[in-house]
Amino acid sequence: MNFIAADADYKDAAMVLFGAPYDSTTSFRPGARFGPSAMRSESFGIETFSPYQNLDMADDMTVHDAGDMELPFGDPRPVLDMIEAKAAAILDDGKMPVLLGGEHLVSLGSVRAVAARHPALHIIHFDAHADLREDYQGNPLSHACVMRRCHDIIGDGRIHQFGIRSGTRDEFEFMSSGHVATERHTCGTLRNLSLPQDVPVYLTVDLDVLDPSEFPGTGTQEAGGLRFRELLDALLDVFARFNVVAFDNVELAPSLDHSGRSTAIACKLLREELLAAGRRLQHT
Amino acid sequence: MNFIAADADYKDAAMVLFGAPYDSTTSFRPGARFGPSAMRSESFGIETFSPYQNLDMADDMTVHDAGDMELPFGDPRPVLDMIEAKAAAILDDGKMPVLLGGEHLVSLGSVRAVAARHPALHIIHFDAHADLREDYQGNPLSHACVMRRCHDIIGDGRIHQFGIRSGTRDEFEFMSSGHVATERHTCGTLRNLSLPQDVPVYLTVDLDVLDPSEFPGTGTQEAGGLRFRELLDALLDVFARFNVVAFDNVELAPSLDHSGRSTAIACKLLREELLAAGRRLQHT
Amino acid sequence: MNFIAADADYKDAAMVLFGAPYDSTTSFRPGARFGPSAMRSESFGIETFSPYQNLDMADDMTVHDAGDMELPFGDPRPVLDMIEAKAAAILDDGKMPVLLGGEHLVSLGSVRAVAARHPALHIIHFDAHADLREDYQGNPLSHACVMRRCHDIIGDGRIHQFGIRSGTRDEFEFMSSGHVATERHTCGTLRNLSLPQDVPVYLTVDLDVLDPSEFPGTGTQEAGGLRFRELLDALLDVFARFNVVAFDNVELAPSLDHSGRSTAIACKLLREELLAAGRRLQHT
Amino acid sequence: MNFIAADADYKDAAMVLFGAPYDSTTSFRPGARFGPSAMRSESFGIETFSPYQNLDMADDMTVHDAGDMELPFGDPRPVLDMIEAKAAAILDDGKMPVLLGGEHLVSLGSVRAVAARHPALHIIHFDAHADLREDYQGNPLSHACVMRRCHDIIGDGRIHQFGIRSGTRDEFEFMSSGHVATERHTCGTLRNLSLPQDVPVYLTVDLDVLDPSEFPGTGTQEAGGLRFRELLDALLDVFARFNVVAFDNVELAPSLDHSGRSTAIACKLLREELLAAGRRLQHT
Amino acid sequence: MNFIAADADYKDAAMVLFGAPYDSTTSFRPGARFGPSAMRSESFGIETFSPYQNLDMADDMTVHDAGDMELPFGDPRPVLDMIEAKAAAILDDGKMPVLLGGEHLVSLGSVRAVAARHPALHIIHFDAHADLREDYQGNPLSHACVMRRCHDIIGDGRIHQFGIRSGTRDEFEFMSSGHVATERHTCGTLRNLSLPQDVPVYLTVDLDVLDPSEFPGTGTQEAGGLRFRELLDALLDVFARFNVVAFDNVELAPSLDHSGRSTAIACKLLREELLAAGRRLQHT
Amino acid sequence: MNFIAADADYKDAAMVLFGAPYDSTTSFRPGARFGPSAMRSESFGIETFSPYQNLDMADDMTVHDAGDMELPFGDPRPVLDMIEAKAAAILDDGKMPVLLGGEHLVSLGSVRAVAARHPALHIIHFDAHADLREDYQGNPLSHACVMRRCHDIIGDGRIHQFGIRSGTRDEFEFMSSGHVATERHTCGTLRNLSLPQDVPVYLTVDLDVLDPSEFPGTGTQEAGGLRFRELLDALLDVFARFNVVAFDNVELAPSLDHSGRSTAIACKLLREELLAAGRRLQHT
Repeated sequence: MNFIAADADYKDAAMVLFGAPYDSTTSFRPGARFGPSAMRSESFGIETFSPYQNLDMADDMTVHDAGDMELPFGDPRPVLDMIEAKAAAILDDGKMPVLLGGEHLVSLGSVRAVAARHPALHIIHFDAHADLREDYQGNPLSHACVMRRCHDIIGDGRIHQFGIRSGTRDEFEFMSSGHVATERHTCGTLRNLSLPQDVPVYLTVDLDVLDPSEFPGTGTQEAGGLRFRELLDALLDVFARFNVVAFDNVELAPSLDHSGRSTAIACKLLREELLAAGRRLQHT
Repeated sequence: MNFIAADADYKDAAMVLFGAPYDSTTSFRPGARFGPSAMRSESFGIETFSPYQNLDMADDMTVHDAGDMELPFGDPRPVLDMIEAKAAAILDDGKMPVLLGGEHLVSLGSVRAVAARHPALHIIHFDAHADLREDYQGNPLSHACVMRRCHDIIGDGRIHQFGIRSGTRDEFEFMSSGHVATERHTCGTLRNLSLPQDVPVYLTVDLDVLDPSEFPGTGTQEAGGLRFRELLDALLDVFARFNVVAFDNVELAPSLDHSGRSTAIACKLLREELLAAGRRLQHT
Repeated sequence: MNFIAADADYKDAAMVLFGAPYDSTTSFRPGARFGPSAMRSESFGIETFSPYQNLDMADDMTVHDAGDMELPFGDPRPVLDMIEAKAAAILDDGKMPVLLGGEHLVSLGSVRAVAARHPALHIIHFDAHADLREDYQGNPLSHACVMRRCHDIIGDGRIHQFGIRSGTRDEFEFMSSGHVATERHTCGTLRNLSLPQDVPVYLTVDLDVLDPSEFPGTGTQEAGGLRFRELLDALLDVFARFNVVAFDNVELAPSLDHSGRSTAIACKLLREELLAAGRRLQHT
Repeated sequence: MNFIAADADYKDAAMVLFGAPYDSTTSFRPGARFGPSAMRSESFGIETFSPYQNLDMADDMTVHDAGDMELPFGDPRPVLDMIEAKAAAILDDGKMPVLLGGEHLVSLGSVRAVAARHPALHIIHFDAHADLREDYQGNPLSHACVMRRCHDIIGDGRIHQFGIRSGTRDEFEFMSSGHVATERHTCGTLRNLSLPQDVPVYLTVDLDVLDPSEFPGTGTQEAGGLRFRELLDALLDVFARFNVVAFDNVELAPSLDHSGRSTAIACKLLREELLAAGRRLQHT
Repeated sequence: MNFIAADADYKDAAMVLFGAPYDSTTSFRPGARFGPSAMRSESFGIETFSPYQNLDMADDMTVHDAGDMELPFGDPRPVLDMIEAKAAAILDDGKMPVLLGGEHLVSLGSVRAVAARHPALHIIHFDAHADLREDYQGNPLSHACVMRRCHDIIGDGRIHQFGIRSGTRDEFEFMSSGHVATERHTCGTLRNLSLPQDVPVYLTVDLDVLDPSEFPGTGTQEAGGLRFRELLDALLDVFARFNVVAFDNVELAPSLDHSGRSTAIACKLLREELLAAGRRLQHT
Repeated sequence: MNFIAADADYKDAAMVLFGAPYDSTTSFRPGARFGPSAMRSESFGIETFSPYQNLDMADDMTVHDAGDMELPFGDPRPVLDMIEAKAAAILDDGKMPVLLGGEHLVSLGSVRAVAARHPALHIIHFDAHADLREDYQGNPLSHACVMRRCHDIIGDGRIHQFGIRSGTRDEFEFMSSGHVATERHTCGTLRNLSLPQDVPVYLTVDLDVLDPSEFPGTGTQEAGGLRFRELLDALLDVFARFNVVAFDNVELAPSLDHSGRSTAIACKLLREELLAAGRRLQHT
């Protein structure tokens, strides 16, 4: 079963969707492994038409859904290698990789592949948590360290965080020292962000950036988050103004939300992202 | 068991509440059949006094609760006939019918009875979904088509929609072609709506117009909805400025929300509507 | 996505699985429409090997999963016609139809097709409820009447019920008058049932025959039901001793059971049924 | 709303059902206050006919449902006085009181009224817990002490307990010393219990005597309990052989069981008890 | 297990946290008894660092967690005496008592102890409900009367309520008559509240002042509440501008919210309150 | 917070309880990491007295609860080393280690420590699943391989499995080839198992051996399991007849069971095991 309207053949697709159902380093409530498959099942409850963009998935994008990767649970190293290889293959075929987590650590695999091909890469990062720890309980490959590992690769001034409202004192000092640019609680400063037109951007969206009232289906809920419209407007702004070369949505844990609205909101956001990316790809 | 304070005898009542526990055409998650009975049970958890209007159900309204209709499940045609007959009888006794769904299709029965008696009828419609399809999977009598069927009856320029944020391209084109007036996402333009003073108005509220975070207990949740205060203010505005001759609240599916807040919010909104309608009836 | 190991092409398959996601006449808690899709998703949590029969789905059966039918909600008449046509086509291609409900009424479509091709048909029926009403709230096409409608087709002495523990006085008198043979509460008398070797049998399993403690995910729970092992042994006995030409499993409503064990047990029973039927087909 | 078929007028009724929605001394999970109202709502999901007794509520009993008492929460003393007065009034009108809890402490109010009118009273008690503490956290009026308080009234050798599987060493020593007769885990010895034919019996059923798998909707679940059929058979045996003058069912906490099967089983047991009591009353 | 970072010895602590797990007078859904223990368990899911205040629990406060009191259920009088004695002992040791409910009535015990030592006491009260009834079902010691009982002690003009959106006509008239100062729905007027610098203030926070979408885990949900950021900002304002001598957070009922976000938000608010109070205590 | 009555100091204790909150290799539903802490919290809902053994935890055992280990999520190798070291230290201090999982893989750490000190070790294993795979998705250190890894250490004829009802064909052939002794579905053959009196035994209990109706709170439910009394009797038999030198209970995932009965049953079983082991230790 594919995500709704993501029914193109691989060879015809401009974008390739793939799931990384891994959550072994989740430190609080696991369950993000079931995110991509829940999104596929529930996506048939949303319309293909977007009244926000006046676009329709049936007409305005070509996406192939490659399904979920078969990943072993436990040690994250082989997992990240497999994700990196998958993203690399998609990029090398001239297509845009779109990763669905799983826990946030999976983004690192995709970022590695993208950064290797786009050395000037910037990352735009929506999240409740800074994810900038040097290590977590001695483990440098933890979801809580994923942006720090990305910083290891792309360096200072290249990561732009929005919505952050939780972290350790060390992480907030790391931001303050200028290593990354962080907007706390909101994404208001996104409007002021300017990048040269051809700078490649990786967009990573930890869905817990949303308020827990709207998105309870995630492992580590953090009060005081974004509303759906705030996040949607910010994401459409990113696609409109920047050269997004790959993106991901992570940390939907569907079984933590019996009402199903978290999965529904994740599907709706992905529809909007795919349409925004698809339109841009069609006009370039 | 009646809805709280809706304890008038039929003959003394200015308004008559009745439930239509039918949800057979629901296309996603069913359960709206249990809405009216849940509201009656849970209504004893709210106060009879409204601090919003400084009115009390014990003093400022006379409502008879006629309970739930006994409706067969399956084919909607006999169901709509029964609802139409029920609403007609109430109208013919000089009382205002107040319908509790059930799925949104039940409104059609009530609208038929009202339109037959008020040919100049306008409809004010709060909803997340346009409900303007010509048919759904070949079926013209589906909850997804209910406003289109109302349009068949009352024609162009008579339906005023608020809060709409989902539909097909066809539905949005139907709006744009001037058949209905639609405010997307919000009810901001309600303030600009003006109608001649004696124009009869049917008010239909699909409770999924509320944001899923506040109202998860409904079959098809749609992110980006109204807050309680936005909807309450809009509804009080409708009763204050327009000649509402009948109204309904539909699509509460209580078992989809274990927290119970959806039923609680539905009870509170109904209290405010009954008080607002009751005050107007007492002063005319 | 197919049910686990039901991955044969249609032309190669001895059995064809198809879902009928319809529950519009359900009179208590709806939700059976989601049964077949939940079974497909969750089936990947069970093994393909059966220690009960020492058989493996990978080796000992060939099943094609035709997915869910697209059925309109509401009026059951067109729905039953579509199911009948689907089952007829499978039978006419020389394959065994295996229907997954949906509410119990869907069995009627399949029984019509089978009875038309096997006039000597008997039905073996596991259920908590007699389903023998002449009509329900005036409606003769209700899940509560499905076995009575089957009796209309195949007549006296051909229906063998097991596990029945709920019904009206009229239904129990209908049994006592010899129209159907009913074992109350248990399936102990199944061992005494004998039929000529070539009599064609339709097996219909309303999963609420199981005890609600083991199978809470169904619309109308009825205390005092069968244990898993009792039902499994009875089903294996049916396949071992009778000429089953088609069968169905109905009334799983997965969202009524947050623990997921109802879906898991339904998957496990279907695995055992497919293996038992598959072995028999391979040896005839 | 009355319990299904308990629709006789007070003056015509042989039995009077009343709810005592009090759970303030519950020491673990509260919620039994909602038991009686949930039973009334859900009772419309069961049949009026009993295949176990071949009786129908419409024909074989006359019961008045007096609804729930309005009881203050907090201090149990006024609550017990109110329950005692209610039961006394029913008895003095020549009718049988049938009490629905609420926590088990409410039984004490009813027992006081009955014992005052039947000095030779015996009590048959089904429960997972002995409820024989002298006090609980210094409080002698706690649900955990209710049978000890009954023993204070009726004395040694008059209480017959079944299904008990939890208590303190002191409570088990109190049993062993001959104050009460206790069958552990099962109700097997009930068959050996004999009482002179006209001895008045109060039957009190704490529904947590059932296994938590069948009845999770109760405040203090205790593994290793009775199956539905074991309890049903025991209860029918009590009504068949003893002179039950009043009875109660307590400790259903419906919100602790989202599947609803606990309320369903409580309704079914009450149906059987009312029918068994009703038949006996009609023949004496 | 202590609340995260509340690990000081009693003698070294500036603040003492204690739980009052009592909810016997709760009139709707009980369960607040489990609030304090759930907060302790779940507190390990939040960070010790506050990005809102740039403070860390490890450095900027000294708190002893005295655990939960052992309180009998039922009659509230001995319970209030025990809480009063506990708070009095903490105050007399020169420390600030921080009470976690339990239902709102427990605040009365703490207020009694504080008012006896601070006769000029004012109370700042956040709540959805006025809690100003003279009695509830005849009982003057109910959660619904707690602020009226506080008014009995400290008199007119000393209670400042924020967020109130539910009550009886009598309660709203009691406010209007000038006995208490009430801000309806919001806490906007808090900015205008001024008190002489050394006036002692008791802060009581009924967490149901939050919107049910953000905080469903409470017994009586009331739509139209505060957002997390509104409440947080108001609380930080209270600690910054007033001389808070004791405070409490009450009415978290964790089992009513399966998503866990209510407990998470309660932990986060307590962290911020402890840090704000701790900083003030360190600078005075 | 310790498990109820496990309040001895380490130096005085005959048994040491410790939690291993790790579930990173869980292949279906994770959540076993929360098992030990849930058991500690909920253990205060059970009595310290066992009517099954006429023993009381306050008198008949001395247990120290060492709390939960701090284990990193992800790679299992360091985790197993830490558990092995922990168990080794307890054994070397002359005490019996009692491990609470976590997923079943954690048992391997404990078995390594025990086997190193007791070369003649046998293992008695209760489980629904054989756990005898050579590897799972290429990973030899998976919960699905744990008994195979134990077999690697102690060899043929030393592992005695009970209750097994799921596995691959390969696993069942591994059993049949005589490597391990397996009782399918039940533990009936346990009565026939005899071992020389001084043979050291490691007892490992995967709680999913229980029927899902009684124990839904586990990651991979498997229908057709043991009843509580069957398992309890078998465990008491093991402690009575064999020389148990260490044991564990694993795979409770409390958040998968909202009713709480899974945690309650786990607590009750642990009480019985500790009492049985404690009595034996006191008499040797």
